[in-house]
Amino acid sequence: MQKPTLPKGTRDFGPEQMSKRLFIFDTIRETFKRFGFQPLETPSMENLSTLTGKYGDEGDQLLFKILNSGDFSANITELDLASGSKKLTPKISEKGLRYDLTVPFARYVVINRNALTLPFKRYQMQPVWRADRPQRGRYREFYQCDADVVGTDSLLCEAEIVLMIHEVFRNLNIQDFTLKINNRKILAGIAEVIGVPGQEGTLSVAIDKLDKIGQEKVLDELRGRGFTEDTLSKLDPLFSFGTLDLTTTLNQLKTWLSVSDLASKGIAELEETLLFVRQYGLANARVEFDPTLARGLSYYTGAIFEVKANGVSIGSVSGGGRYDNLTGAFGMPGLSGVGISFGVDRIYDVMDELNLFPASAGQGTQVLIVPFDSEARSVALPLLSKLRVANIAAEMYPDLTKVKKMLDYANARAIPFVVLIGSEEVQTGVLTLKNMLTGEQHKLTAGELVTRLE
Amino acid sequence: MQKPTLPKGTRDFGPEQMSKRLFIFDTIRETFKRFGFQPLETPSMENLSTLTGKYGDEGDQLLFKILNSGDFSANITELDLASGSKKLTPKISEKGLRYDLTVPFARYVVINRNALTLPFKRYQMQPVWRADRPQRGRYREFYQCDADVVGTDSLLCEAEIVLMIHEVFRNLNIQDFTLKINNRKILAGIAEVIGVPGQEGTLSVAIDKLDKIGQEKVLDELRGRGFTEDTLSKLDPLFSFGTLDLTTTLNQLKTWLSVSDLASKGIAELEETLLFVRQYGLANARVEFDPTLARGLSYYTGAIFEVKANGVSIGSVSGGGRYDNLTGAFGMPGLSGVGISFGVDRIYDVMDELNLFPASAGQGTQVLIVPFDSEARSVALPLLSKLRVANIAAEMYPDLTKVKKMLDYANARAIPFVVLIGSEEVQTGVLTLKNMLTGEQHKLTAGELVTRLE
Repeated sequence: MQKPTLPKGTRDFGPEQMSKRLFIFDTIRETFKRFGFQPLETPSMENLSTLTGKYGDEGDQLLFKILNSGDFSANITELDLASGSKKLTPKISEKGLRYDLTVPFARYVVINRNALTLPFKRYQMQPVWRADRPQRGRYREFYQCDADVVGTDSLLCEAEIVLMIHEVFRNLNIQDFTLKINNRKILAGIAEVIGVPGQEGTLSVAIDKLDKIGQEKVLDELRGRGFTEDTLSKLDPLFSFGTLDLTTTLNQLKTWLSVSDLASKGIAELEETLLFVRQYGLANARVEFDPTLARGLSYYTGAIFEVKANGVSIGSVSGGGRYDNLTGAFGMPGLSGVGISFGVDRIYDVMDELNLFPASAGQGTQVLIVPFDSEARSVALPLLSKLRVANIAAEMYPDLTKVKKMLDYANARAIPFVVLIGSEEVQTGVLTLKNMLTGEQHKLTAGELVTRLE
Repeated sequence: MQKPTLPKGTRDFGPEQMSKRLFIFDTIRETFKRFGFQPLETPSMENLSTLTGKYGDEGDQLLFKILNSGDFSANITELDLASGSKKLTPKISEKGLRYDLTVPFARYVVINRNALTLPFKRYQMQPVWRADRPQRGRYREFYQCDADVVGTDSLLCEAEIVLMIHEVFRNLNIQDFTLKINNRKILAGIAEVIGVPGQEGTLSVAIDKLDKIGQEKVLDELRGRGFTEDTLSKLDPLFSFGTLDLTTTLNQLKTWLSVSDLASKGIAELEETLLFVRQYGLANARVEFDPTLARGLSYYTGAIFEVKANGVSIGSVSGGGRYDNLTGAFGMPGLSGVGISFGVDRIYDVMDELNLFPASAGQGTQVLIVPFDSEARSVALPLLSKLRVANIAAEMYPDLTKVKKMLDYANARAIPFVVLIGSEEVQTGVLTLKNMLTGEQHKLTAGELVTRLE
């Protein structure tokens, strides 16, 4: 008999991990709800025609494809076989697994365009799948938690994203984080000013790596993509903003990019967003304007966001931005929107490493009833019902066995309280409540016991 | 541009459906927690070696298989191609999508056998996938919500399942349901008594259809499987219990099956389970003993359960039972357990048809702020923050537009309250709260408004 294994890059989440993960999910969901976002779920499978071509060539390679049901091989000729996997795939697979939540959301909006009230605010918390090479912190199945609003270009939405980020991380007890903000129009303006108008995409992909590979290698990459030395020398000011305060940075940027209307618009949007954040009354906002923040994704056209937790070397835990044409690929152009995505797996790693989970996050059963014999059960059963009516998670050890074994079970499960019921307890109706952490014991009636644990 | 479509048998769940589904999920999850079950999640993909052979030939056909990544066709020879899809599959696919939550649970227990504390109580709420022919009420992706306890054969666990079923359905407001219970050992005893010992599996599969196809066709099916007329005539008593009360049924059954030790054990288990249910103090228990209840699945060995909602013609909404060898297929024999599964999709259909969802289940945003101009926003923004701090789901219409358009948005979203802010409100600080259902308006300060909506 072969011992079963898990597919590479996938994980089980046992009770302790799950309880903590649920704490993260619940916190994010509650925040989304308070901000008026509505839940949406889309199928795990999408037609490959929906997914293909949306994530670049590399993304297409990383899509998990589902083998057609039934006699799929009947359609394959020897010629198909000879022409290789890439050409063979569409003959035997027409569905793939969700790669992100953005494309399915765009697909949903297009299908339901006539029924939806705009602006449409939705959140979505579901797993996505990527056939990436598994490595530390990178999995083939992981959760995304996205909130987007489409059908409005109001910068209030950007401000609300800043607020939501603060609320999520503060509620998660991640106090020390950095939220960087930039605007793609500023990057587009830079492309104009250095003489490569329209090439802000290439510029963004390279600058996005500044943190990881440094200025020299970013410039090397741009050289490789055909940027001249003259062009690159004009980029110098971009790398000099690091240590300046917000007002100085903005002023220098305005001077540098004054000839670009696009850049001016981007700067104005940024200033208005930050003004709205102040008007909301957000205390101690952790927003940093970073003109080198780029975010690789090509569809952003306005504000971009990125959040990192300080004190750990884990990548960004949240990111997003404004886009103007998300549904264009499905024949519905001109719908503007802005969104934010929280990465639960990385947030978990941050909280685990910094020991930030509250004790209650792992809390399962609160009290275990330990009956000494079958007579004790007749007292235990109605007590169990009473505890549960009072919304106290309670269980009884199901087998009659040694008391020590039952107490070991309580300890292994980290159940904080046990109720001991022996013959004395059956006769008097006074039960013994034991605190498993302190060892303290109290004699209580069933009613007192419920009140005490409530 | 081709309009995007959804794969056959899959669904989007928009905001209204999702809010209602979340109400069902939350209710089930809270009940599982109160009864001491701990959360578990397993990957959507499992190795095909884990899944294949666990669901019968038909089940194997219905597994969704994932095409191997990379150059999968390099391993295919022309001979492979000629030998058909079934033989080709293992060459190009080594993973499949989860078909149920039971096999992944068994796989999890086996992998973690040394780390788990027994008895192990877990719940799991995740989608499963089946390449079934889509039809009304049958989907290719649907959720299961399972709770199982393994590592004990205590009948208290069966009693707790009866209690959980009552608690879930009562909390869902499904008051009128029928919970049928039987015991596979009684069916095994019947097989003995009618002269086909060990054939309770065949018997169960046929009797399982009694509700749908009637007594005559059940007998026909058994004839087709080689049961003689003599054997079948001995089955007569089984069909006569329908109208009798519990005590009479049990007495007649005891007489009929007195020669079978297995049947006697099954009857004793049933009686003890019902006794425990009474000791728990469950009022108005809706448990019906039905000796013709069979449940098709082959792995049940003790109690079996099935729940139907009365007043709708929707199949069973919940079912489960005891098994003795769930992990045997993975080399870990002799682990007894009992479980229950709730079908969220069917529960949704029942509640929808009977109009049982509470108004709060669909409740999203509670209040929309309607600013008449940009000055009004400066009053609106801190108010929004105040509302959200008080845990009130609140939003502001993000664009400055006609008041009518904003009120239409509130109505389309079924937002029950709006706050109107014009120049008078900005000057006096006294805001207008409008109830969108009744049209009633109240003048309130920001503080009063928050208190009123809390």
